[in-house]
Amino acid sequence: MSIEYHQIGTIRSPFKDLEGMPIQPTGARGVKGSIEVDPEFKEGLKDLDGFSYIILLYHFHRSEGYSLSVKPFLDDETRGLFSTRAPKRPNSIGLSIVRVIEVRENTIYIQDVDVLDGTPLLDIKPYVPEFDKRDDCEIGWLDGRSKNVVDKRSDKRFA
Amino acid sequence: MSIEYHQIGTIRSPFKDLEGMPIQPTGARGVKGSIEVDPEFKEGLKDLDGFSYIILLYHFHRSEGYSLSVKPFLDDETRGLFSTRAPKRPNSIGLSIVRVIEVRENTIYIQDVDVLDGTPLLDIKPYVPEFDKRDDCEIGWLDGRSKNVVDKRSDKRFA
Repeated sequence: MSIEYHQIGTIRSPFKDLEGMPIQPTGARGVKGSIEVDPEFKEGLKDLDGFSYIILLYHFHRSEGYSLSVKPFLDDETRGLFSTRAPKRPNSIGLSIVRVIEVRENTIYIQDVDVLDGTPLLDIKPYVPEFDKRDDCEIGWLDGRSKNVVDKRSDKRFA
Repeated sequence: MSIEYHQIGTIRSPFKDLEGMPIQPTGARGVKGSIEVDPEFKEGLKDLDGFSYIILLYHFHRSEGYSLSVKPFLDDETRGLFSTRAPKRPNSIGLSIVRVIEVRENTIYIQDVDVLDGTPLLDIKPYVPEFDKRDDCEIGWLDGRSKNVVDKRSDKRFA
């Protein structure tokens, strides 16, 4: 079954190159960017400025093809693709939780941006701890490695 | 810009009807289901069983059309669509964080399922608190209402 989506806006960030980027929002603390939502969707942004964080779903437009076994940025071993956040996926949907600074007209000013400049936006959802926060988690192969995400930067392996 | 994705599996749950469903995984504690991943993607499931939770991205296949202003299940007022989790969206992508019970061959047995039976799966990502957890959040219009999600059930408004 094939599913067709459409770009509803564009994510703006200081990152123009796939190399040397933060690999998660937690590695991009304070990095400022914005979301230019297409004017036809402006009405849907109402009430969004009351939320500290939003979940961005976007298309990894620079990632083509995929492998089901990958060596992630945070590991030296090969892992099953779906146990990683690698951008090259059967459906290359990216997910980032970013801080909302201000909503003005059809632009959302955001912080903690780990997304490539020019990335096509697919959806915005409010981040709600009651829905989205989990505690006491096992994190498999990332155990002891996830904290390295703060300093780790991307290389060209998924370009 | 148009983006084409493909179904990579099917989500199985006890929910056969859009009415009377939990509206978030937190309202579906203990509800069991499974994900039948297409056999061609089985290799990508390796290492997934080490994680307590996974993020499911899926297509709201029963939702057609959308309105940019909606009255959410948890409120009596009209809100901007992107400040809600309503299923009818410009790109109807659903997001649920569910508990992993077991991975066997190409089937993932899960718990806390708030998804309609037969829903097309788009992506699976590991849930990693270091990447995905945020504390001290303002939650706009959901303030004081988000806890009602445990008991709230859907009606036909987004059918």
